[in-house]
Amino acid sequence: MSSRAIFAEALGCLMLFATVVGSGIMAERLAGGNMAVALLGNTLATGAILFVLITMFGPVSGAHMNPAVTLVMRLRGHIRTDTALAYVATQLVGGILGVWLAHLMFDLPILQLSTKLRYGPGQWAGEAVATFGLIPTIIGTMRMRPDSIPASVALYIVAAYWFTSSTSFANPAITVARSLSDSFAGIGPSCVPAFVIAQIVGAVAAHLVSGIIFPSLQEEFA
Amino acid sequence: MSSRAIFAEALGCLMLFATVVGSGIMAERLAGGNMAVALLGNTLATGAILFVLITMFGPVSGAHMNPAVTLVMRLRGHIRTDTALAYVATQLVGGILGVWLAHLMFDLPILQLSTKLRYGPGQWAGEAVATFGLIPTIIGTMRMRPDSIPASVALYIVAAYWFTSSTSFANPAITVARSLSDSFAGIGPSCVPAFVIAQIVGAVAAHLVSGIIFPSLQEEFA
Amino acid sequence: MSSRAIFAEALGCLMLFATVVGSGIMAERLAGGNMAVALLGNTLATGAILFVLITMFGPVSGAHMNPAVTLVMRLRGHIRTDTALAYVATQLVGGILGVWLAHLMFDLPILQLSTKLRYGPGQWAGEAVATFGLIPTIIGTMRMRPDSIPASVALYIVAAYWFTSSTSFANPAITVARSLSDSFAGIGPSCVPAFVIAQIVGAVAAHLVSGIIFPSLQEEFA
Amino acid sequence: MSSRAIFAEALGCLMLFATVVGSGIMAERLAGGNMAVALLGNTLATGAILFVLITMFGPVSGAHMNPAVTLVMRLRGHIRTDTALAYVATQLVGGILGVWLAHLMFDLPILQLSTKLRYGPGQWAGEAVATFGLIPTIIGTMRMRPDSIPASVALYIVAAYWFTSSTSFANPAITVARSLSDSFAGIGPSCVPAFVIAQIVGAVAAHLVSGIIFPSLQEEFA
Repeated sequence: MSSRAIFAEALGCLMLFATVVGSGIMAERLAGGNMAVALLGNTLATGAILFVLITMFGPVSGAHMNPAVTLVMRLRGHIRTDTALAYVATQLVGGILGVWLAHLMFDLPILQLSTKLRYGPGQWAGEAVATFGLIPTIIGTMRMRPDSIPASVALYIVAAYWFTSSTSFANPAITVARSLSDSFAGIGPSCVPAFVIAQIVGAVAAHLVSGIIFPSLQEEFA
Repeated sequence: MSSRAIFAEALGCLMLFATVVGSGIMAERLAGGNMAVALLGNTLATGAILFVLITMFGPVSGAHMNPAVTLVMRLRGHIRTDTALAYVATQLVGGILGVWLAHLMFDLPILQLSTKLRYGPGQWAGEAVATFGLIPTIIGTMRMRPDSIPASVALYIVAAYWFTSSTSFANPAITVARSLSDSFAGIGPSCVPAFVIAQIVGAVAAHLVSGIIFPSLQEEFA
Repeated sequence: MSSRAIFAEALGCLMLFATVVGSGIMAERLAGGNMAVALLGNTLATGAILFVLITMFGPVSGAHMNPAVTLVMRLRGHIRTDTALAYVATQLVGGILGVWLAHLMFDLPILQLSTKLRYGPGQWAGEAVATFGLIPTIIGTMRMRPDSIPASVALYIVAAYWFTSSTSFANPAITVARSLSDSFAGIGPSCVPAFVIAQIVGAVAAHLVSGIIFPSLQEEFA
Repeated sequence: MSSRAIFAEALGCLMLFATVVGSGIMAERLAGGNMAVALLGNTLATGAILFVLITMFGPVSGAHMNPAVTLVMRLRGHIRTDTALAYVATQLVGGILGVWLAHLMFDLPILQLSTKLRYGPGQWAGEAVATFGLIPTIIGTMRMRPDSIPASVALYIVAAYWFTSSTSFANPAITVARSLSDSFAGIGPSCVPAFVIAQIVGAVAAHLVSGIIFPSLQEEFA
């Protein structure tokens, strides 16, 4: 575990989460009540910054920026347990700082708690499905066309913002961090645990399935 | 025919069709009656997921996700008849499961039938044209710049959603599956046969034309 | 001059112009009077199909699809005069067929004349600037990063749709063809000559300037 | 310092700033008061032209088009002081001509001063953050995946238009030039100095941080 990797992971989460929350605030302020227009702006900004961050930080830290991704990389044996734990802590700290930075840039109180309730079987299914889909996107693209990882992950999240009723958090760290913002992108703290459980269930299931569709190089040439 | 290919084709159709229907539901719910804004969201999500799925599943199964494409690949001799039939069955089953998954994520009744009527010479011409254009996009790009296939196919569908009056189904399996959703993306079951016929006519015509513009390597160097 | 190149140029213009006009009709119908939303849809479809067509037809015919581009390629000595003339005739015929195809797909009268007046020093300056900018985009990208030609040309037109008051025709063939459509993308026939003159002035000026910034390989290594 | 590089920098700024201001005017005119729709159009055009300009001018001049970038390149020792000064002067002159060209194309008075006030701690923080993020995007991508520079820089600005309350000028030259346009993209002249200071602070801080995450090749293999 290099300190450069930890630094990249922290800065990546800070910029990603500031973008998700900041663009949500901007979009809601400007959209005049048309929430589809607001979601277009939020989607465009999120997808764009994901491409940027994965392109530059991918070769440094892997650019997980997501504990569900770190968990799967641990399950696949790509990183050690202590590195995985350090990554998750870094993602949470960096991400929360990013949310607070968004509040600072929009002249809002730094410390907030979301009052937006997000729950129900449909949204939980959506979070499991969204996280399920993210894992083969990463593993399959890494295995088949590694140069396309930044574009594929960014575009997967672009799609997932629209195909789930929860607009796809698909990331336990961002779920926690967004509970600290009473804005477009927020989620009430009481709704966080069920979302995180759904995300982990989806990620672990996807880990098992991905091993079938995308065998490792050793298996393929055995 | 490998079981990995069939699995990839099933999962690809499931994710593609869930995105088409799910993003249509999301877009219509949020758009406040502005159907152009709704179509922007639906277009963005569909194009994005197509790039993702073709990037990762292309090297596994070819990522047809469309019986019209499978038909042309059979006509060109790229796959055997039994594989083609298995692909089409898989596309239908995977795709219908995807539509039902979208309903589940949006807390809607799983089993539905569309009541949206889509018919008339303009729409049938549109389906023939849309499918006609898809085939050289695949064959020509595969022949000239194979690395651009995911981007080209995704962007072709993005354009086709807007240049036809039917918003381009261009895919018999998705036409059948969307008849099972009474939402933005739906099509009444009685309208399905004419759409499928138009799509097959367009695909076969495009197969003949593509052979002229993009000769096989053997022809070019004969 | 190969017949495959002529065929590719005809099919390219047919699909491009059908997309420009068809997506304009679709966008205006759905946008509920918000012309910025309509222009977003029209822009997205046009940029997307340009990427697709240049990717697949570029290696066959050069994918000019624009008499101003063909003129510059003749001035640079890349094609012969008879080929250039055949290209321009093909672009006009293919493009007009594309406009008529769009009308067919939207159940509109095939034969129309636009009644939309587009004129004035600002719009003429816009056409000259838009065409001026297109030429170094093609020549410079071809010289510096040929693989990026489809993306660069598509994105240049995306930008130009928004930075000129005329939404950038930047193409004499499409200007003529769009005079035959009384829809979002139309232009009154009486306004065509001034637009075409401005486009040719911009193209020739850009040809001269591009030679300064992007010297030929021979000059650079002389 | 080659005259071709200066010419490329001038033409690049002219086209970039004409696009930023021109698309802002177009977007505001068409958006019917929905400022999120206007910002979508402005964002799309700006991101698109950045990709185009960096692709073609990057190999000629570096395509800085931004004094904050030129400053960092000087601090890193990539260019000499006299070249840096010539670049900054060129960016200002080319950029102001671009703003005036936009006014010409939209039949507006050429000479204007913006009356739009943009100030406050949130916006200043936003400018510092936006410029801070731009620098590692350039340095990190150049170091890790140089082919992705045009896409990364374009997409970074796309995101930054939405995640800061000031819609991210992130460029001292464009800040000065936009003070000469009383339109969507304008900024009152009195607000310019604080923006420029924030941008320089962000750029210098990012220069220091980038050296930690992205060591030079010499350091890495030492």
